[in-house]
Amino acid sequence: MNYRIVMKILGRVLLIEAGLLTAPLITCAVYGEDVFPFVWAIAATLAASVVMLLPGRGADDSLQAREGFVSVALSWIVMTLFGAIPFVLSGVIPNYIDALFEIMSGFTTTGASVLTAVEGLPRGIMFWRSFSHFIGGMGVLVFMMAVLPMDDRHSMHLMRAEVPGPVKGKLVPRMRTTARILYLLYIGLTFLEFVLLLFGHIPVYDALLTAFGTTATGGFGLLNDSIAGYHSVYVEMVVAVFMFLSGINFNLYYIVILKRSIKGFRSEELGWYLGIAAFATVTIALSISRMYGGFVSGLRYSVFQVASIMTSTGYATADFNLWPAYARSLLLVLMIVGACAGSTGGGTKIARLVILVKIAFGEIHRQLFPRSVPNYALDGERLDTPVIRSTLAFYSLYAIIALASFLLLSLEGLDLDTTLSSVIACMSNIGPGLGLVGASGNFSVWSAGGKVLLIFCMLLGRLEIFPVVMLVSPGVWVARKK
Amino acid sequence: MNYRIVMKILGRVLLIEAGLLTAPLITCAVYGEDVFPFVWAIAATLAASVVMLLPGRGADDSLQAREGFVSVALSWIVMTLFGAIPFVLSGVIPNYIDALFEIMSGFTTTGASVLTAVEGLPRGIMFWRSFSHFIGGMGVLVFMMAVLPMDDRHSMHLMRAEVPGPVKGKLVPRMRTTARILYLLYIGLTFLEFVLLLFGHIPVYDALLTAFGTTATGGFGLLNDSIAGYHSVYVEMVVAVFMFLSGINFNLYYIVILKRSIKGFRSEELGWYLGIAAFATVTIALSISRMYGGFVSGLRYSVFQVASIMTSTGYATADFNLWPAYARSLLLVLMIVGACAGSTGGGTKIARLVILVKIAFGEIHRQLFPRSVPNYALDGERLDTPVIRSTLAFYSLYAIIALASFLLLSLEGLDLDTTLSSVIACMSNIGPGLGLVGASGNFSVWSAGGKVLLIFCMLLGRLEIFPVVMLVSPGVWVARKK
Repeated sequence: MNYRIVMKILGRVLLIEAGLLTAPLITCAVYGEDVFPFVWAIAATLAASVVMLLPGRGADDSLQAREGFVSVALSWIVMTLFGAIPFVLSGVIPNYIDALFEIMSGFTTTGASVLTAVEGLPRGIMFWRSFSHFIGGMGVLVFMMAVLPMDDRHSMHLMRAEVPGPVKGKLVPRMRTTARILYLLYIGLTFLEFVLLLFGHIPVYDALLTAFGTTATGGFGLLNDSIAGYHSVYVEMVVAVFMFLSGINFNLYYIVILKRSIKGFRSEELGWYLGIAAFATVTIALSISRMYGGFVSGLRYSVFQVASIMTSTGYATADFNLWPAYARSLLLVLMIVGACAGSTGGGTKIARLVILVKIAFGEIHRQLFPRSVPNYALDGERLDTPVIRSTLAFYSLYAIIALASFLLLSLEGLDLDTTLSSVIACMSNIGPGLGLVGASGNFSVWSAGGKVLLIFCMLLGRLEIFPVVMLVSPGVWVARKK
Repeated sequence: MNYRIVMKILGRVLLIEAGLLTAPLITCAVYGEDVFPFVWAIAATLAASVVMLLPGRGADDSLQAREGFVSVALSWIVMTLFGAIPFVLSGVIPNYIDALFEIMSGFTTTGASVLTAVEGLPRGIMFWRSFSHFIGGMGVLVFMMAVLPMDDRHSMHLMRAEVPGPVKGKLVPRMRTTARILYLLYIGLTFLEFVLLLFGHIPVYDALLTAFGTTATGGFGLLNDSIAGYHSVYVEMVVAVFMFLSGINFNLYYIVILKRSIKGFRSEELGWYLGIAAFATVTIALSISRMYGGFVSGLRYSVFQVASIMTSTGYATADFNLWPAYARSLLLVLMIVGACAGSTGGGTKIARLVILVKIAFGEIHRQLFPRSVPNYALDGERLDTPVIRSTLAFYSLYAIIALASFLLLSLEGLDLDTTLSSVIACMSNIGPGLGLVGASGNFSVWSAGGKVLLIFCMLLGRLEIFPVVMLVSPGVWVARKK
């Protein structure tokens, strides 16, 4: 293990976080609020950054797979430890564990909250809360690659660990350019939504923060009843469309927009994504039409909630906790399925589901005709054994961790709906679940221990398990063989 | 597809079923009950058997993998279609769909019932109900192999499809001898329990039927409150021990008892089975100790319910629906895990879980050290790629079918506990679930459509998915290439 390169990366991440913390600081200044929570947070973050960067100077610059995984997982943890400071110092969330939960929920774009009411809170704090979605959506290490000079071989290991999905493609030969293109598309999408929301006659501040929460598929809202509070079909539809767009693999936008090729639309994963979304939207609209006086009205709520849950955003225009069993069950399943690989969305990703289905049906064929050789492909590219193996290992670990967390959390004695959906909503980075943590509830029902468990569930979900599990794997910490 | 060999096998299975139906017929005669439900059932079964055997005469005797799978799946379906007749004709379950549910639940050793009360029903009918567990426990085709002459190559394909578990080992070179040994052990275990139960001062009839339900890990009881109704710690412990013993791979008994070698105890799966059972029993006893006035008293109920759920039996001495969240959640997880491969128990089997865990942790190692070659082994034998692939495909199909069934069943609008646990309890062949289908409820809450779905879930679970899925796979029904 090359500890010094890990220190160096952590130091750089904290440096970037200190820089990003100036945005809410400025917001505080603009609105005449107390700036000290952010001043102190920046000072602490900078100090920690320097402490880490000093021994990292002149480090042996070699970064391999395990250093990559460990750096990413630790980066997210230290970012959270320092990102929670403003919540505590401002007194909005005085308990540090609660503050950690809130900011981890922000960075991982989960959107689960411990706050019982969000209206009337300081604007700077609310800005930081929503801005954390934007920071975590595309990944802070991807951002670091885009802005700081770094060896290409290093970047690859970091990108592999931070960008979601079973297959990581480089858009262009240079990783740094890839990172810049991804951020360009991400900022473009966010800005476009911001502008469109302004046409809906909502305040500039609200439009910006809502856009942060949408394209990052985060879900922190500014009103107690989320997007429903704007009472505008236009705003709902803009947000729904941008949630949906943010759940698509950003590589496709690159192919379609920047390379002007329609080849991007010929993605198998995109086809499944559209198919599942259409099926869920129509059948849920049918199942809730009686509650809202007709299919069209049902469709309005169905479109929004399906887009929100599938992309793991978590915004709400209706309390689906009160919907019929079918709608609730389907939404629970969609929470696990999630959005496309390479998007800002969470869940276990459609691409993995497609691979799973292909293997399952391939195996039926192979058992029937034992001499046949199965050939799995996604988008015309052959799925080789390592991809299949890591996909299946991912699902195994996801299931094992989800069940273990479910059992641990059930020690707190809440009902099955709340317990199971809390784990799924956190591991899939959705936000609201069912029961007591539904759209009208919040995660303050859990004890400090339960919150710490869910903090790790969010991180495991966002980093797709492997980097976090590796932190506790003894093999990582032994000295590297020369 | 060689249709004639399939017909021949189905004809033979029905012939055996007609023979087995004489047992409840004799019971009726002994207790002076109406014998006609069984007379007519035997006549119909025999007639169908002859209709199928006639065209099957002189069939091209070649039986390959797909004919094996299809024969087993269809055998179980026709057995169920005819096995339901006595319930309808006796008027105990007048609705044919309900009767199909009850007998499929019997054959698959699920033990889920549509009957709201079982005390006072005709003894012949109750005998058939419990006897169906015994028939299905070790497998009717395994029985057929043991008693009827059959080509060894054919038997292998049938055995592979009917005996549960990811790895099928032949005990001895000849399949027929293997089948006889398995039945010998199975009958011996059942007889031993029967004798021990007689020492508990319960009626001979009750002791025999309880033994059928135990060693088959079925769970149909004779009293409305299951084994609790005997009010005897001795009876409870005898049943608990035999449930537990029936969840162990029968191959181990062969090695230990008949080959007098202690090598049988050195099974990795057995170690996990013991470990999981011990962990669950102790932690659940702790969590319920307050309800029952102490740890020892809690242990009495914990031992029984854990053995019952892990082995997928479904007998009850307490309503675990009323237990704390942790105990209920753990039992729900144990339902999915199930018992050992090659036992009469259900679930997804411990051996598969062990393989899954090995792959997951192997993958972590491989991602850390990309150049290392993972080597998976179970009990010292290398797990080759086909075993890994079929294990993972099994879990994929299990998850896909479980989620699809869960969604379909949720259309009926019952609560999440009831809906989810109904699917799991049927697919894992447990019997009771949670909520409305808990230990004190029953499956009559579902509509006819819901019951048909659950009938297929039970069959999918018992035959471990592949044979049933292959019935609807177009590739099966095309003519075989010469």
